[in-house]
Parts: sequence; structure tokens; C-alpha cells
Amino acid sequence: MKTFREATKQLQERLGAKVVRVDPAARDAAAFDSSKLPFPPEAVVFPRNEADIAAVLALANEHRVPITTRGRGTSLTGSAAPVRGGWVIDLLAWNRIRIDAEAGMAHVRAGAKVADIQRAAEAVGWFYPPDPSSKEYCTIGGNIACNAGGMHGGKYGVTRDFVLALKGFLPTGESVTWGTPTKKFSAGFNLRDLWIGSEGMLGLITEATLKLIPLPAARWTLLAAFKTEPEAFRAVRALFAQRVQPAICEFLDRYSVQCAERATGVTIFAGQPGRPVLLIELAGAASEVRELKKTVLAWAAAQALAHRAAKNRAEAEALWAVRRKCSGAMFELGDAKLNEDIVVPMRNYEKFARFLDKLRRESKLAIPTFGHLGDGNLHVNIMYHKAVPAECRAAEAAVQKLMETVVALGGAISGEHGIGLAKSPFLRLQHSPAQVKAMQAVKRALDPNGIFNPGKMFEIFEVWKHPRMDVKLPWDHK
Amino acid sequence: MKTFREATKQLQERLGAKVVRVDPAARDAAAFDSSKLPFPPEAVVFPRNEADIAAVLALANEHRVPITTRGRGTSLTGSAAPVRGGWVIDLLAWNRIRIDAEAGMAHVRAGAKVADIQRAAEAVGWFYPPDPSSKEYCTIGGNIACNAGGMHGGKYGVTRDFVLALKGFLPTGESVTWGTPTKKFSAGFNLRDLWIGSEGMLGLITEATLKLIPLPAARWTLLAAFKTEPEAFRAVRALFAQRVQPAICEFLDRYSVQCAERATGVTIFAGQPGRPVLLIELAGAASEVRELKKTVLAWAAAQALAHRAAKNRAEAEALWAVRRKCSGAMFELGDAKLNEDIVVPMRNYEKFARFLDKLRRESKLAIPTFGHLGDGNLHVNIMYHKAVPAECRAAEAAVQKLMETVVALGGAISGEHGIGLAKSPFLRLQHSPAQVKAMQAVKRALDPNGIFNPGKMFEIFEVWKHPRMDVKLPWDHK
Repeated sequence: MKTFREATKQLQERLGAKVVRVDPAARDAAAFDSSKLPFPPEAVVFPRNEADIAAVLALANEHRVPITTRGRGTSLTGSAAPVRGGWVIDLLAWNRIRIDAEAGMAHVRAGAKVADIQRAAEAVGWFYPPDPSSKEYCTIGGNIACNAGGMHGGKYGVTRDFVLALKGFLPTGESVTWGTPTKKFSAGFNLRDLWIGSEGMLGLITEATLKLIPLPAARWTLLAAFKTEPEAFRAVRALFAQRVQPAICEFLDRYSVQCAERATGVTIFAGQPGRPVLLIELAGAASEVRELKKTVLAWAAAQALAHRAAKNRAEAEALWAVRRKCSGAMFELGDAKLNEDIVVPMRNYEKFARFLDKLRRESKLAIPTFGHLGDGNLHVNIMYHKAVPAECRAAEAAVQKLMETVVALGGAISGEHGIGLAKSPFLRLQHSPAQVKAMQAVKRALDPNGIFNPGKMFEIFEVWKHPRMDVKLPWDHK
Repeated sequence: MKTFREATKQLQERLGAKVVRVDPAARDAAAFDSSKLPFPPEAVVFPRNEADIAAVLALANEHRVPITTRGRGTSLTGSAAPVRGGWVIDLLAWNRIRIDAEAGMAHVRAGAKVADIQRAAEAVGWFYPPDPSSKEYCTIGGNIACNAGGMHGGKYGVTRDFVLALKGFLPTGESVTWGTPTKKFSAGFNLRDLWIGSEGMLGLITEATLKLIPLPAARWTLLAAFKTEPEAFRAVRALFAQRVQPAICEFLDRYSVQCAERATGVTIFAGQPGRPVLLIELAGAASEVRELKKTVLAWAAAQALAHRAAKNRAEAEALWAVRRKCSGAMFELGDAKLNEDIVVPMRNYEKFARFLDKLRRESKLAIPTFGHLGDGNLHVNIMYHKAVPAECRAAEAAVQKLMETVVALGGAISGEHGIGLAKSPFLRLQHSPAQVKAMQAVKRALDPNGIFNPGKMFEIFEVWKHPRMDVKLPWDHK
């Protein structure tokens, strides 16, 4: 067994210096993802074809070299950071998209950008709903690896619900295909869905076949303000109780709204500054949306402090701008953020709102919260100043308390980001020792040399103890 | 390590003779499923609670006793038959159903009947779409274990698409929970979906949380006849090309129609006997269905030889009666049936129709075919007479050729029945050696003693060489 450096030299001799890059520029660029925790790898591999990947994996297994698969690196959890060094396999150039307009399927390679897939589908009347906020940057490979979600989850589901087949490599280096480009498949253990959400620890995905759905012919957007967060939550529950399933149901608490209002200088509802809001979008057949609109307007009149429908696409876009402003504006409240994408069952929304109020009081931190109320996936942003030790300790205590509460309420510690490094301290709140043991047994079975994305998920990494890079990424919210 | 008989005695001493039954009546009833291949177990366990299951699994692991979990036993593949003997755990009495009307979820125990879940959901305005034809008998535990499908797969998806969380036991005996009762979950390896479709080989499911969708307010049914099967297939493709997604799109070839017409004495379309037909059902908001209806009627006028819409629910039911008649009536064409639930991608429908014609000519067997064209899941019924050796050989050759063709066309050897015993000879057509090896590695990782449903999936069992019981089951088609 060679050292990583010797193995890297051997790999470079085999594939050439254009495919296997060891220069600082390449290594630094592949050292971190959106978690901004840098761990430079020994080399970055830009495979030209499947044979290159097979060669990398053969050598990596022989010499136990860690392998981290990378797309655009938008992961917020550190799941794409090569924490144990080794080789990064960069698939960003593997970006082919082919829409099968007849079957309603997209055949894509791992590096394809999610927004490009959506646009290619929409051009021929099909719709790919999952839409993480980084969709103009992130790749489908990363979305599958982390089971990414987005605003459409409540009605349409998440990435997992749209993956029909996967092609790629086992950690041991064999090329495999899971599933078929068909809507039914019940033949053998389902390793397709085991790969989805396994964060690059059980396989390397090179291609996917995605299911598409007919593009909704009509959309309609409404913004509504509420007196308090619990009132907004109660209103959402009342809407869903009428069996209305909006395509999007976004929530911003008063702190998020205040951030957005300060950033834009505009009060969202004149005379009602700083109120929690809901942004609701209906989508479907034109007649269906017309019908549902009446129900939603009657609901808003009864439940909301104020509401405003978009008259056209441009007005709808203006409403959405509010939603996008809040996240970046939060850095007025602190220069560091623990961004947690927890999930809470709908019946516990109000209980969770009360918990957050208590957490704010006790931690003395700003904790603006927004998210997707169709599926209970809330983004809780614990803001603090990294130079103030008391705030750092308070943030650490707050995130621990948050995770304990979420699990106690029957929810999930992550809805769409995954575990990576950032959530590793909380995995055992969600999963019992037997569950973790079973996951680790599966890991050992498929990756006996432990080379795929080591150091993640099962090993505890306390992100708040590690300095983050002071770097602005293209997808960081303005 | 004791013999099975000694271990059984020990188990009975521990849990009592009411829980652990060894009488011939209990053992005979648990010896077979709908594949009608009997293998009597040593004992049948009717657990009262989770502690009973834990006790059974502890002893089974100690003495390497095979465990077969059983619901109603409607599996067509032998997946619920205790082929290696041992203990059957019968969960039919574990049938509690609780609908969370607010969240749109069903909390069910494994023995709950699928049709009961549907009715309980519909009573409060929710819909659980998966609907295997045995839904008035089969249990949700079995549906999850085999990833059951049904007629609604094309538009709504299959069982997998509706499972949010599972509770149960690992083969090693630990109690575990996978997923949460929420619509998003991305926290740890996804063993929930690994369990789904694993046919009782990777875990024992005791409870599930199912996602429900709003009950469609309106339904509309159309029956259309076509000159030939390829014309029916082309018409379906033309319909889907208009982005129309029927809730149901059932196909019956001329042979299935002839069976139904002979059985009922009624010609479906006067003057056009024995024509292939499509049964289409639209579902959705009232206005949406009204809108789509126009498109579908125009399509039928242009594409079909004849068509007829149902005026009301009773007429729609009369149309559905045709569909249900065909399956049982096939036994006029032979006293034995190889019922294969293959899947073919839509673009290859016509190619597959030509293949089936060739297969009929070459095998000299009747092969009536019907199925779900929304997802390409066709039921190919190879009929033969078990006393005629030439027909037996022809059937065996035909099923082999069918499976090879399906895989060559990019399809699946099973869409909704699973592998069990019946499809085991074909698993390696679908999956490469590396894929099978990976599945077996996962099996060993989770079931090191190999006690959960042994002898299935990976070991080759040629059903056509084994005599089937001459027994009529309640869910056999009349």
C-alpha cells in the first residue's frame, strides 16, 4: 500500500496531468463546499469517461485513498468537503441533458444543473418540481446524493420521488445500474433509493433517469400577513384541512420579514410592518386554479390580517423577491449562522413556534425562521457573532436544544440538506444505536475499504468549533 | 444450536400454545401463498405484541430458524411461502388503521387490509391510490414488502411513493424506525426504502405511516376499442403526447377481450367483437376533469374504432366489470398460467406487441395480455395444460424469451409482484453480477444468520417444475 502521494503520482502517470490535477488552484477549489470548511485533497480528477472513473476507483481501493465526489459544491453540510484528503472526482463537466418528451423523462448526467433540467423539461411541456434555492448552480448528482427538496415538496415531493434509474459505480469500483427508465420496478433489493440521500458514501452517481410531470398550465400567487407566527400556523392548518394543496406554501416569521424590509426599505403590507407572512402559489389546470383561487381568497379574508394576490407574473415575481431577500439580510443580526433545515409535523407547528420563542429568550440570539409549510421543513437560522464567546456557546446550546425538540415533536433533524459534517453530532438523536449500527453495516458491506466520503455522518464533527472561510460564493443570498 | 423442532418447543414454552401454534391446520394454512406452492413451517406464531416478536427473533437467531412474515398470503411469487420451513410470523391480526385527517396521513399496522385503508381515508376526503387487484384481501405489510402497484401507478405512483415511515424489526432482532411522519426526511442512509420491496428478507414491518393525497372530486370513465394491439398502443402514445395523464389507463388485448366476452356472453362493442380495448379514467377537480374530457373525447374520435363514455357511476362500474372478468376466464385456454408482471418503456410498446405475436406463433400457446399502460406494466399470461409435456416445455421457453426481451427493451422483469421464487431464474437477466453481489452483501450485513425468508430471490427456483395446489383462493378471479 502506497502513501496517498505515491498513489497520486501513479494515478497521474496512468491518466495524465490534465485529468489528474495536483496544482494548488485545483486542490484549493475542491477543498470546500458551501459549508466553507476547507480540507485540501491530494488531487482533483476530471474524468473524461467511465474508464477513467474505474481506473481511479481501482487504485483508490488498492491504496485506501479517500474518494469525494463533487458537483458544484453547494452543499451546506460539508458533505462535499474532502475531510480526510485523498482524491476528489469532479463531475461538473458531465452535464448532458436529454429530455424524452414522449415518455416524460429526463436522462441526465450527474453534473447537469438542476435549473437547466427544469428549463429543458418546460420547453417541451414537462415539469421537474424539486427546486433547492441553489438550483441555478447545484447539480442533479448532488441533489440525488442529498435527496434535495425545495419549495415544491409538500405537493410534489422531493428529489427521491422523481428518480427512476441511476447509473454509477459501487465503492468497490464496479459499474452498476439501479432501476429502469420505467415508472414501475419491483425486481430485487432497492439500492437505487439506498443511494439517494447516502451523500456519496455508498456509491458514485454518473447518470440518472428522472420522472417528469405535465407542466401546470396556470399559476396564481398570494401573499398574506398574520398577526403572530402561531396565527399563521393555525391558518395554514385550516387551509390544508379544506384539502387545498398549494404547489408552494412559504412562511417567513416576523424576524425574517424585518430583515427583508430593512434590506429593501419597503414595508410588505403598508401599515403592518414586520408581520409574519405566507406566500402561497397554486398550480394546475387553468380551470382547477380558478376554482381553488376562490377557496384560498375566502380563507385569506377570514384568517389573514392583510392579503394581496399577484395580478400577473411580474407582480408574482415581486412577491417572490421578498422571500429571496430575507436570507442574506440576516447577516445584520450576526456574522455567523447555524442554518438548520429541520422538519416538524403539521400538528406540532404551534408548539414549535412557542419553543422557538422560548429559545430566542433563553439564548438571547436572533433566530429568524422561514420555510416550507406544505411539508413542515423549516429553516431555523441561529445567528451569532463569532468573536463573542458567550454567543458562540449560546448558539451551540441552542442548536442542541433545537434538534432535541424537533425529534421529540416527531420531526427530522434534516429535511433536505443531509447530515455531512454539520449534522453529525445529532444523528444519534434521530436514530437509535440499532439504526446507526444497521447503517454502518450497510456501509461496510458496500464499501469494505471505507474509501467513499469517509469522516462523515457517523463521526462527530462540531462545525461551530471550526473556523469558516471568509469567502462569498455565487449562490450565497445577497 | 437446537434442531428446529427443539427450538420450536422452547418457543412454545416461552410464549404459550395459543401464540405458537404447531397443529396441522395452522401449519397447512401458512404453508403457501397465492403461488400455491406448499412448504409447511414448523410453527405459526401469532404475536400479541412487539415483545413476542422480539422473543421469536432472539430464539430464531440463536438456532438459525428461518422466519417468514405473513399477511394474507396473496403474493403470486411465493415470497410468503416458507420454502425452508421454520417459523411463520402471522401479522394478519395487526390491523389497526388510524387516519390523521389533518396531516393527510394514515398510521397503519402491517396487517391492515389495503381496501380498508382506502375506505378509511376516503371517508375523510383523502385518497390512498395504490390498488393491487387483491386489495380487498391483501395487507399493507405485504404491499410494502413487495412494493405493490396497481392501476393508478402511471399518474400517482406505487406503494413506495406513499410510505413515509416504517416501524419494525431488523433480522437480528432489534426494534427500529425508518423515516418520520413528515413529507421530508434526509437524515441518514435510507433503510426505509431499502425495506420497501425487499420481500421480507431485510426486515419485519409492523407499522407504517402512509402519505395520502386529496381525494379527487370527480371521475370520468371511457371505454375505447381499437382494430389491433399496435393501434391501441399508438393511440395511448398519442394521448400521452398531449400531456394528458389519466388516473387509470387499462389495456386488454383481443385475447383477454375474447375471454371476457365468452365468459359474459356480451359483446363489448356491438358489431366489433374481440377487439383490443382501453379503459381510461380521468380523476381530479371537477373543472379539470370537464376540461380534460373534451381532449380525450376528441382523441377517441380520431383514434378509436369505437368508444363509449360512462354516463354515471353504475355505467362506469359496468365497464370495469369487463376488466375484472378477463383474468379468470383465461383458464379456458389452459389449466396452468405463468402470470408475468413485466414492464416495458412506452416507446417500445409496438415493438413489444410484435414480439408477443411472434411468441404466440412460435410457442403455439395462448398468451392473453392486459395491464397498465400509464406505466408500461403489462400482465402477460402464458396459458398451458400441465398434463401436456410439449405445452409445459413451450411455456418454459416462452417465459425465458419474454424476460430476455423485456430486459433488452429497457424494461423490468417485475413491476409490482416482486421476485420471490417465481422470478428467481430471471433476476440475473435484470441485474449484473456486481449488482447481485451488492444486494447479497447488504443481505449478509443486515441478516448475518440468513434467517429472514431464506431460499428466495437469489437462489433459482423453477416454479414450472413444481406442482401447484389445486385450491381456489378467495381472491382468485372468478
